[in-house]
Amino acid sequence: MSETRAFPWPLLHEFCLRVFRHLGVPEDQARLSADVLSAADRRGIDSHGVARLRTYYDLLSAGRINARPRPRIVRETPSTATVDGDNGLGLVVGPWANDVAIAKAEGAGTGWAAVCNTNHYGIAGYYVMKAVERDMIGWSMTNSSKGVAPLWGGERMLGTNPIAIGFPAGQEPPVIVDMATSAVAFGKVEIAVREGKPIPLGWALDRGGYPTTDPKAMIDGGALVSLGGDREHGGHKGYGLALAVDVFSAVLSGANWGPFAPPFALRQPDPEREVGKGIGHFFGAMRIDAFRDAAIDDFIRTLRATRPAPGTSGPLLPGDPERQAQKERDVHGVPLVAAVLDDLRDIARQTGVPLE
Amino acid sequence: MSETRAFPWPLLHEFCLRVFRHLGVPEDQARLSADVLSAADRRGIDSHGVARLRTYYDLLSAGRINARPRPRIVRETPSTATVDGDNGLGLVVGPWANDVAIAKAEGAGTGWAAVCNTNHYGIAGYYVMKAVERDMIGWSMTNSSKGVAPLWGGERMLGTNPIAIGFPAGQEPPVIVDMATSAVAFGKVEIAVREGKPIPLGWALDRGGYPTTDPKAMIDGGALVSLGGDREHGGHKGYGLALAVDVFSAVLSGANWGPFAPPFALRQPDPEREVGKGIGHFFGAMRIDAFRDAAIDDFIRTLRATRPAPGTSGPLLPGDPERQAQKERDVHGVPLVAAVLDDLRDIARQTGVPLE
Repeated sequence: MSETRAFPWPLLHEFCLRVFRHLGVPEDQARLSADVLSAADRRGIDSHGVARLRTYYDLLSAGRINARPRPRIVRETPSTATVDGDNGLGLVVGPWANDVAIAKAEGAGTGWAAVCNTNHYGIAGYYVMKAVERDMIGWSMTNSSKGVAPLWGGERMLGTNPIAIGFPAGQEPPVIVDMATSAVAFGKVEIAVREGKPIPLGWALDRGGYPTTDPKAMIDGGALVSLGGDREHGGHKGYGLALAVDVFSAVLSGANWGPFAPPFALRQPDPEREVGKGIGHFFGAMRIDAFRDAAIDDFIRTLRATRPAPGTSGPLLPGDPERQAQKERDVHGVPLVAAVLDDLRDIARQTGVPLE
Repeated sequence: MSETRAFPWPLLHEFCLRVFRHLGVPEDQARLSADVLSAADRRGIDSHGVARLRTYYDLLSAGRINARPRPRIVRETPSTATVDGDNGLGLVVGPWANDVAIAKAEGAGTGWAAVCNTNHYGIAGYYVMKAVERDMIGWSMTNSSKGVAPLWGGERMLGTNPIAIGFPAGQEPPVIVDMATSAVAFGKVEIAVREGKPIPLGWALDRGGYPTTDPKAMIDGGALVSLGGDREHGGHKGYGLALAVDVFSAVLSGANWGPFAPPFALRQPDPEREVGKGIGHFFGAMRIDAFRDAAIDDFIRTLRATRPAPGTSGPLLPGDPERQAQKERDVHGVPLVAAVLDDLRDIARQTGVPLE
C-alpha cells in the first residue's frame, strides 16, 4: 500500500461542504451531501466517502448533475411514492426520497419510494440508519453502472447493486446489513491491482468470460461475478438478488436499468441505449410497532453467543465492523491514500477551498 | 440413485387432498394444502412436495399441528398485519396471510403480513406467484429449524431461511426468484450421502466447525454455511440475509426465532427455549401500478441476450428452471424415489386412501 495520511472527519466534512457550496449546491443540500460522504469515511467504507468527491466535482462542474434539483413525487398511494430526482446529486435526492418513505410509513405502517433521474447516492447504509433512528426498519437499494456478469453470462450486464436493511434494537446497537450483491466490491479488485496481488477464484471473469485470478483481467473488459460465485455455490442466488435490486430501483422507477445505467464518471462512454432517466434507488421504511412491540436484543445476544468456529472469535452482527471503524476513526482520523489526497489537493487548487 | 417411478401430478394431488381430509382438515383447506405441495412437485422442487407429506401426516396425527386453525389478525395498519396462525398447517395459514398482504396492497399500494404460530409452508415461490397473478410484486420468507452456521460460527443457529420475490411481466413469463439463504439446500447434502459422494468445499462445516467435504459430517452435528461461503467470498452477506429473514418472519411476528425454531419432524427434540409461538413467515405484495405503468419485458429480453460464458448456453432468468421442469412433469409425471414411495404407501395403508 502507498503511504496514507489521517484526517479528522470533521475537517473532511467541512471541505466537502465548501466544495459543494462552491459548485452551486444550496447550503442545506451541500451539508447533507457532506454528511452522507462523512458517514462512509467514518464507517470505514473508503470507496464511498471523500474518495468519490472528485467524481461528484467533475460531474457537477461539467453540468452533468443538476446542482439545484427539485425532486418531486410523480405518483403515489398511501404507502408508496415514485420520485423524479430532477437529475440531482444522489446525496441530495436520496435523503429526500428516503424521508418520503419514512413519512409514508408514519401514516400507513410502511412506506416505499422508487426513484428515477438520480445519481450515485453514497453508501446504502446511510439511509437505513435514518429509518432506524425513527424506530423503523429501513431498506435501501440502488442500481449502478454495469460491472457484474449474470451467472452463465460472459459480460457485464448489472451493477454491484447493493441492498441495505437496518433493524432498530433496544439496548443493543442496531443491526445494519449493507452489502453489494456481487461476490466482492469493485474496490477490492482495484486494491489487488495496486498491490500487485492475484485475486481469489470466485471473484471475477476475464473479457472472454473465463474465471480469472488476475485483477487486471477483470478491470480490462472482464466482469465481477454475483454473490455465490459459480452455480455449485449458489451464484444464481446472487444474480437473482442483483436482478431484483435493478427492478426495484430502476424498472419500477423509470430509470435506466441493467447494462444501460449511466457510468459514474466523466470520461466513460455513455451506454448504447437510453431506457429511462438517470440511475434509480429504492427506499423502504417499516414501523416496528406496526407489527409488534418487539425488541430484538435477545436475538442479537443469542447470535453473539454462538460457539466460535475454530480460529475465529465468533460471529459478528451486521454493522459491527463499521461501528468499530467509526469508533477508531473518530479518534484517530480517516486515513487517505496518496491518490485520494492528490485529488483533494487538486480540487482545493481549482476551487480555492483550503484543505488544511 | 435408487429407482424412481413417475406419477401424474393430479394423482398425487388427489392423494394429498384425501389424506389431509382424512386427518380432519376441512375440504377447502385440504385442497389448498394439496395445491401448495403439487406446486413444488410440478416445479421440480422435490424436497418440498409430496415427499414432505409424511411429516405433515405425522404431526397432524400426533396433534402437534392444529387441523382446524382459525388464523386471525392481531394487529394492523393500512399496509400491515400481524397474523397468529393458531398453530395450523403452514400450507393453510400461509395462503391466508398472503391473501391479507394482497388485500392490504389493493388499498394501500403495498401490503405486508408477519405471521407467528404457524408451521412449514411449502415452497416460498408458491406465495409470490399468487401476488404475480394480481399484477403485484410478491415477497415471501419463512424461518425454519436451525441448520446453518453464521459466518465464523461453529454451530447451527439459523434455518435455511428462504426468500422468494416474484415480478409480473407482460409477454414474457414472470421472474420468480426463490432461494434459500444458505449456500445450498439441505436436500443436496442428503443426496450426496445417498450417492456416496463428497460435497464441494464451501457447502458445510463438520461438528467441530471445520469446513468439510463429507456430507455425513454435516448431517451428524455439523452445519450448512450461508450463501457466499467464507469471508473472502461474501459469507457475511448470506449470513446477513438469513438473519434478516429470521427477524422479518419470527422476531417481528412473535414466533420462535434463530436456534429456537421448532423442528419440522416428530422425533427431533424440542429447542431448549421457547421464545415465541411456532415458526414464522413474512409476506409482501406491491402493486406495480402503485409505482409506474411499467413492463419488464425489455429488461428480461436484454438479460436473455447476454453473451454466454464459454461452455454455457447463457444466463437464465430466475424461474426458468422451474418452469421448464413443470412443462416436462406435466407431460411425463413427477418422479418419486423409492423412499418417498414407501412413505406414501405406508400412509395409504394407515389411512385407507388408495395411492394408485
